Amino acid sequence: MSAPIITLTTDFGSRSPFVAAMKGVLLCINPDAHLVDLSHDVPPYDVRHAAFFLADALPYFPPNTLHVVVVDPGVGGAREILYVAVAGQRLLVPDNGCWTLLAEGHAQPLRVIRVRERRFWRPIVSSTFHGRDIFAPVAAYLSLGVNPADLGPVTTEWQQLAFPTPQRRTDGLCGEVIFVDNFGNLITNVSGSALTTARAPRVSVGDVVVPNRVRAYADATPGSLVALVSSNGLLEIAEVQGSAARRLSVGVGARVSIDWQQRKE
Amino acid sequence: MSAPIITLTTDFGSRSPFVAAMKGVLLCINPDAHLVDLSHDVPPYDVRHAAFFLADALPYFPPNTLHVVVVDPGVGGAREILYVAVAGQRLLVPDNGCWTLLAEGHAQPLRVIRVRERRFWRPIVSSTFHGRDIFAPVAAYLSLGVNPADLGPVTTEWQQLAFPTPQRRTDGLCGEVIFVDNFGNLITNVSGSALTTARAPRVSVGDVVVPNRVRAYADATPGSLVALVSSNGLLEIAEVQGSAARRLSVGVGARVSIDWQQRKE
Amino acid sequence: MSAPIITLTTDFGSRSPFVAAMKGVLLCINPDAHLVDLSHDVPPYDVRHAAFFLADALPYFPPNTLHVVVVDPGVGGAREILYVAVAGQRLLVPDNGCWTLLAEGHAQPLRVIRVRERRFWRPIVSSTFHGRDIFAPVAAYLSLGVNPADLGPVTTEWQQLAFPTPQRRTDGLCGEVIFVDNFGNLITNVSGSALTTARAPRVSVGDVVVPNRVRAYADATPGSLVALVSSNGLLEIAEVQGSAARRLSVGVGARVSIDWQQRKE
Repeated sequence: MSAPIITLTTDFGSRSPFVAAMKGVLLCINPDAHLVDLSHDVPPYDVRHAAFFLADALPYFPPNTLHVVVVDPGVGGAREILYVAVAGQRLLVPDNGCWTLLAEGHAQPLRVIRVRERRFWRPIVSSTFHGRDIFAPVAAYLSLGVNPADLGPVTTEWQQLAFPTPQRRTDGLCGEVIFVDNFGNLITNVSGSALTTARAPRVSVGDVVVPNRVRAYADATPGSLVALVSSNGLLEIAEVQGSAARRLSVGVGARVSIDWQQRKE
Repeated sequence: MSAPIITLTTDFGSRSPFVAAMKGVLLCINPDAHLVDLSHDVPPYDVRHAAFFLADALPYFPPNTLHVVVVDPGVGGAREILYVAVAGQRLLVPDNGCWTLLAEGHAQPLRVIRVRERRFWRPIVSSTFHGRDIFAPVAAYLSLGVNPADLGPVTTEWQQLAFPTPQRRTDGLCGEVIFVDNFGNLITNVSGSALTTARAPRVSVGDVVVPNRVRAYADATPGSLVALVSSNGLLEIAEVQGSAARRLSVGVGARVSIDWQQRKE
Repeated sequence: MSAPIITLTTDFGSRSPFVAAMKGVLLCINPDAHLVDLSHDVPPYDVRHAAFFLADALPYFPPNTLHVVVVDPGVGGAREILYVAVAGQRLLVPDNGCWTLLAEGHAQPLRVIRVRERRFWRPIVSSTFHGRDIFAPVAAYLSLGVNPADLGPVTTEWQQLAFPTPQRRTDGLCGEVIFVDNFGNLITNVSGSALTTARAPRVSVGDVVVPNRVRAYADATPGSLVALVSSNGLLEIAEVQGSAARRLSVGVGARVSIDWQQRKE
């Protein structure tokens, strides 16, 4: 039988000892856990970044993989920790909505449980580092076969993270950049179908028109600014072998518009 | 039986091939080793950073876990490599004091051995990359069951790293920042008890008074500058959902003072 | 029997969900795969950086280790994906020459195969993320024992990456910096033997003479600019406990010259 996989996603960065401490706690309780780092470079406190990250990556994992997510600006406050079975995956998350984008498009979550049962926590719980004191031990016990029902009560209420949705206009759509990747590619909240279904739509970021519509980066010469369908089906703006984010000096929240009918100019 | 864990902590960064080469050497000798990355982003040459990192993270690991630490500005010179059994953990470290903070508060180290026995090293040893040529093969052999006593002679002398200790004053304490985490939180060398035992102490970083004393970040509104007890029991200065380091333009070494008796102002 | 090792080298960075998605796909097909991160911080699109990285690190791995390399500016275009058995290792690479430096100095590659057989790919293949849709599933199937011959036809043609070679001059050599590591050390394309065989050669980077020739960093005082033989046998310029790259404001491509006969000055 394969070792139980536990993935880790945090905003702790790699110069700090926090991820290491979590790994220690996990391996103390389950030395056979198969730890898989997803990212520790979610920007600090950036729950939206985490939400996009999880929605994009988690569906590719084996069914019932356990994912520990500690992007948790509310640590130590009133927010609780949730066990969530959704989209065929299992997550331990702060109740800040970081998983609700993952849930979209899937059947209702099977189950959400409030993690309250202190016997699965470290004996002393700090008020600033629940990753080490609650998330890690609870995940390790789950990987050993503890029943999620033993963690606490089932709940039907949780925080939702509202993501902006594109606005329809008579002649097109108005959306925005929701993620910037390592290459400076701008991923938007507009469906890629906006690009492929219409007659020659005009795509703009702010006031800058994106001159090329391509299928793949390699379809245009390096330095070209292009619009294409991203690997997760969304409208993406890229500079071929460059950085659209740097070139346009934009980031998350930048306005992106699609005009179906090109105006004469 | 579980695979033997070997953790890795270096200042090699992730764009360079050095960590990869170490992993190759380790896996050649013990293909079943369970490699766990702790950090490869210790700032270059920063032995103090490594010392804090190790002291904070290693106690959470299973007893007798083997930790390879290559933050080694003296590589190729007179410094030797040590095998250290301390605080219930086993380390391979350069003899530069990076492990002595971990040893504080624990019983005397059980055992320190000078790693001199060349038969456990790579046949050709470079003068710039002992991580690959000595640390990795020695760790792999240890994980296969080689007796540490075979690595070289026991020693009772080693380099100590002197960490600053807070100075008592009639009306308080004067300490300093010893670590800045990924969030820009300032961890000091002052015990957190300084905050919890006294009547309303006044905390300052340099000349800036920290206005709030909280139990958790979430106890104050975003943007507040707060003092609290860190997850390892030290006095910490933070900006809620921000960066105290950036806001105050300070780093390691910054002066932090605690006044027990608030002056009138 | 040991779990099959699959190493991962990409330019995806760690804030993006791309590496995570690849890991998910790999573990879905082979939950027992032993994934080893080599680097996800190859600079974006930098095939030369990847080439140096692979040539430096891969020879240290156990024979027949499988290495997945996704530094792939041509994704979605005409470039194909190759399976390469070379230097005792097995690679899945884009056909952009990133592996040809590794092949130098070894016997001819045993075998290069064009990865064309779609039954080992994900059913729907995006035009921007072959790491997830082709590399990951193919690697997982290989780790399960699929015969490389089933991936596609053998080929004897592939892209070569031309690395600059040092130019001989009557009184020395003229080379260049080909890699800058995390410490700001400058690795050149000049063999380290240029330093050790001649009588007191003079080494310059651009117009700056490197005043010290040492065996190890620790042989000179911190802040000294030194020339030495790097851990892979090349001429390296370093600032002891500092950054030569920052001090000299140079990077890859900077001119490095060796004068055998010192001029009087």
